[in-house]
Amino acid sequence: MKEDNVPERAIGVFDSGVGGLTVFKELMHRLPGEELIYLGDTARVPYGTKSPATVLRYALEAAAFLVEKKVKMLVVACNTASSVALAALEERFNLPVIGVIEPGARKAVAITRSRRVGVIGTEGTVKSGAYTRAIQNLDAAVEIHSTPCPLFVPLAEEGWAEHPVALLTAQEYLGPLAGAGIDTLVLGCTHYPLLKNTLHQVLGPAVELVDSAEETALNVARVLADRGLTRRDPPGPPRFFVSDIPTRFERVGGAFLGTPLQGVEQVTLD
Amino acid sequence: MKEDNVPERAIGVFDSGVGGLTVFKELMHRLPGEELIYLGDTARVPYGTKSPATVLRYALEAAAFLVEKKVKMLVVACNTASSVALAALEERFNLPVIGVIEPGARKAVAITRSRRVGVIGTEGTVKSGAYTRAIQNLDAAVEIHSTPCPLFVPLAEEGWAEHPVALLTAQEYLGPLAGAGIDTLVLGCTHYPLLKNTLHQVLGPAVELVDSAEETALNVARVLADRGLTRRDPPGPPRFFVSDIPTRFERVGGAFLGTPLQGVEQVTLD
Repeated sequence: MKEDNVPERAIGVFDSGVGGLTVFKELMHRLPGEELIYLGDTARVPYGTKSPATVLRYALEAAAFLVEKKVKMLVVACNTASSVALAALEERFNLPVIGVIEPGARKAVAITRSRRVGVIGTEGTVKSGAYTRAIQNLDAAVEIHSTPCPLFVPLAEEGWAEHPVALLTAQEYLGPLAGAGIDTLVLGCTHYPLLKNTLHQVLGPAVELVDSAEETALNVARVLADRGLTRRDPPGPPRFFVSDIPTRFERVGGAFLGTPLQGVEQVTLD
Repeated sequence: MKEDNVPERAIGVFDSGVGGLTVFKELMHRLPGEELIYLGDTARVPYGTKSPATVLRYALEAAAFLVEKKVKMLVVACNTASSVALAALEERFNLPVIGVIEPGARKAVAITRSRRVGVIGTEGTVKSGAYTRAIQNLDAAVEIHSTPCPLFVPLAEEGWAEHPVALLTAQEYLGPLAGAGIDTLVLGCTHYPLLKNTLHQVLGPAVELVDSAEETALNVARVLADRGLTRRDPPGPPRFFVSDIPTRFERVGGAFLGTPLQGVEQVTLD
């Protein structure tokens, strides 16, 4: 592959929909010298309520699309897909694959003092036990309290992340966690950073919220450096692809990316 | 087709997921002599936030699966798919196709006295304008107030249809409708019948809620009779197929069907 000048290739990022844009935003911010491609599988979103086998199939198809675009690295900007598909993606494709679970777990273990960590995510992510495994691999003494929060995704997509409905929902979901003495909460879904204010209102300011996006971007930078894959030429602009028509993605995605989204292209994955 | 004894064939019903089970329940109740097959496209649910072109593609694939099973009639037990795919399904397949829009519209026009009708549904259904067209075709003088209620689907699937979160959400969505003098509200999504108590709490007992399921079942019975398609032999038990693994469908679907769900089979549609 040397003759292709691999470092000059783009980094491919995929998610089930708009959520991964919180990770993409962090990559744009921390790695301004890299060229980035985003793929949102909006025709089949969400992944979080679907079975591991189905999510795995979708993740392989999404990754194949990006590999076809000749990316040098895959970033799985979706907790559910990272939970169930990371090993299979590494096995199938001959390039570095970075998920969002490991970076979030590492940060949580680094900052907790009470050694009691909360984890919230989709049904699929929580059921997979991926965060529990990742955290306990790093420190078996950490006590983990995890709970699925299925309504947080539609609330964030509705633009209601700070609405009284979101507050009431968070009180219901997080009540048991608030009583468990956690000092750290892993936001195990890329939509959840939008709910930070609401989560702080329920858990109090003393509980630290771990957003994997930042840690994932640092991890990407580290792997690029370690493998001599850091880009040298000025990058082209970021490109965005989705599997359903772009209208809704452009409208909803702006809030996740923190900047208006335009020029999104539609592609077929299945 | 005569030699196949068409009346003895099953009726095929499809939806994006569990919602259509509210229609299926009514068909089981009103047509106990008919054999019924249900297909839920749970690997790609929901349809309500996706584009008309994507929903059309999925609906054609779902219908093709049922036609392959040799059904005598297709019931589109999904408002979003009925809104955008009915004409294409009728054109593609040589059998009667019954949707849920027309029956709901007919009932609303029949019962409204104030001639002011509310319509709630998914983003896709409301944007399509299908209810507005259907109601105004029947009576151009009826004033229609429609609004999308995207969070009602995840709330019903979470089992929170009568939770304080659902009440607060309904107050937010229906505030404008409550002030518009409507006396009839069309539940333009198969999930919404589960929220009837909550909707009555917000709109008051005087507003009539139109659930298409009942009207659709009556329509199916009428078409079967008109075309000489009513079954004579005792039917086999209902069969259920889904495109993702059945676990979640069986768990969530029971509340929609009003009876426990078992023996659901997984199939591939794409």
